[in-house]
Amino acid sequence: MRGAVLHAPGDVRVDDRDRPTLEQPTDAVIRVVAACVCGSDLWPYRGVESIDRPTPMGHEYVGVVEEVGSAVTTVRPGQFVVGSFFASDNTCEICLAGYQTHCVQRQPGAPTGAQAEYARIPLADGTLVATPGMPDDDLVPSLLTASDVLGTGWFAAVAAAAGPGRTVAVVGDGAVGLLGVLAARRLGAERVIAVSRHADRQALAREFGATDVVDQRGDEGVAAVKDLTGGLGAHSVIEAVGTQESMLQAIGSARAGGHVGYVGVNHDVTLPGEQLFFSGVHLHGGPAPVRRFLPELVDLIWTRQIDPGRVFDLTLPLEQAADGYRAMDERRAIKALLRP
Amino acid sequence: MRGAVLHAPGDVRVDDRDRPTLEQPTDAVIRVVAACVCGSDLWPYRGVESIDRPTPMGHEYVGVVEEVGSAVTTVRPGQFVVGSFFASDNTCEICLAGYQTHCVQRQPGAPTGAQAEYARIPLADGTLVATPGMPDDDLVPSLLTASDVLGTGWFAAVAAAAGPGRTVAVVGDGAVGLLGVLAARRLGAERVIAVSRHADRQALAREFGATDVVDQRGDEGVAAVKDLTGGLGAHSVIEAVGTQESMLQAIGSARAGGHVGYVGVNHDVTLPGEQLFFSGVHLHGGPAPVRRFLPELVDLIWTRQIDPGRVFDLTLPLEQAADGYRAMDERRAIKALLRP
Repeated sequence: MRGAVLHAPGDVRVDDRDRPTLEQPTDAVIRVVAACVCGSDLWPYRGVESIDRPTPMGHEYVGVVEEVGSAVTTVRPGQFVVGSFFASDNTCEICLAGYQTHCVQRQPGAPTGAQAEYARIPLADGTLVATPGMPDDDLVPSLLTASDVLGTGWFAAVAAAAGPGRTVAVVGDGAVGLLGVLAARRLGAERVIAVSRHADRQALAREFGATDVVDQRGDEGVAAVKDLTGGLGAHSVIEAVGTQESMLQAIGSARAGGHVGYVGVNHDVTLPGEQLFFSGVHLHGGPAPVRRFLPELVDLIWTRQIDPGRVFDLTLPLEQAADGYRAMDERRAIKALLRP
Repeated sequence: MRGAVLHAPGDVRVDDRDRPTLEQPTDAVIRVVAACVCGSDLWPYRGVESIDRPTPMGHEYVGVVEEVGSAVTTVRPGQFVVGSFFASDNTCEICLAGYQTHCVQRQPGAPTGAQAEYARIPLADGTLVATPGMPDDDLVPSLLTASDVLGTGWFAAVAAAAGPGRTVAVVGDGAVGLLGVLAARRLGAERVIAVSRHADRQALAREFGATDVVDQRGDEGVAAVKDLTGGLGAHSVIEAVGTQESMLQAIGSARAGGHVGYVGVNHDVTLPGEQLFFSGVHLHGGPAPVRRFLPELVDLIWTRQIDPGRVFDLTLPLEQAADGYRAMDERRAIKALLRP
């Protein structure tokens, strides 16, 4: 089969690779219908995270089940499925508490790489959610977002306690931040302040429900959010970048007693304890337990109540995966969908 | 009047000072019935926090109202009152959300120093809570704890989401940590693991409801809590120290999705973002909004349902304040009560 492989920073190739097979009785193998490039894929692409060998890429996927192991009971060949980027048993104490990304059996959701024609999915019963039937083709991008980027934005909004009567600020205008806007509004937030300098992203944020846009960063961004919130700061802040500046901007933008939901993978971030202490905020985040939200998100998409697939502003055949990486790296695209 | 003044690190004296008077129409002046030495008083006493002039000390107090300003309506001369260590209006949006220590009008609760015969209390309506009558003398120590140390331990337990069915670990065996144990049990926690190396503090922790004691610190302390919790970590962790080691021990002791309530004033703490991100914990804390809990805590004490005053293992006349500081600094006393 064909699949994207990162050979070195900046060097993504679509190679001939072995088609994955069942390795455990709890595995499934799916034919990938759509995959995409994640903001976190750009860390090794840019060399910020190092790789020591050619690495199959991709962890966001929707597809059709090809075969399942003997222990799999909840999905069957022929079903259309969405899975989380982390595989989980969905039965352990941590999963049952809604933290499937920290499952005692957690492992990569698509260890063979999802930017490929086929993918092996471990712990299929716990990881995959079948749709009610074969989706119309126009639903595929939205269902794909549920695999990671929507689930991550949704978790950030939940972690930030977005809800009725609350003002939510969103730091980060990548796909996760934009879908954080969508999630915050869907969860009932009254006012959503998107932080973005890019007109196209500001426009999409407004379409997803942002009521205000702030285009300053750092301390100026904090001041702008405070100006919009009677000097107090937002009740809820979504952090969807993962840098020192964005974390401090998020914490500073929240009022005392407010909630910061952070999902940008932290790189070289150190939080000053005293500043955090005196901020009085709630801080929660980490790798999003997308599986917690999958049934609800699939339903919202299936019934066309939300249209998160609009974050894909570039669709390419799998063979052109390298172009997708390049476009995202250069911020020419918000998010690139790949069709095997 | 007589009042404790810190002149330099290690140099606390009881001096003759001007008796405080009403400065604002929202002030009250109280005759202090009891005050005490706080763990946070030891920071300037040890020279970790610098002072640039002789500083009146003390911010925990109970007393009898002597006089009130013209705008004060909820307390009157002759009432016995407990107040928070932070003064707050208790009417602003932040106060109404339960974060009175971040009140838009916040200021020190006893700016003239509470380790004294009299103290001026700003924003008396928002800051002070009157007891139902004059307390029996044996209730005074417990009522005094409500002013800060109990309220802080209580907030930590609430921030850590202590409650039925949950296991709570408490890092720190000072008075705040010990009262965190009491609070966690009172809030319904099934199991409370106290972290302490001192036999006397372990004993008091058990009397306050600790079910388990761990005497290791740092990574070994984390491992010990994990051993007691099926390898997962505690649902809730109270952090009541404020050092780098204690913060990381607290975060490490919590399971993914668990809650860390931290109330140790952070000094020279920097939290590694990546470690925090992948821990998946909820982190909340800061200066405790004691005022939120005061009515409930006064009631629990008044009706003799809790006996937090047992943290005082040293009672001295105000004139011997220096001995109280010394005993706490040398960890010969858990907490020193001062009687003017």
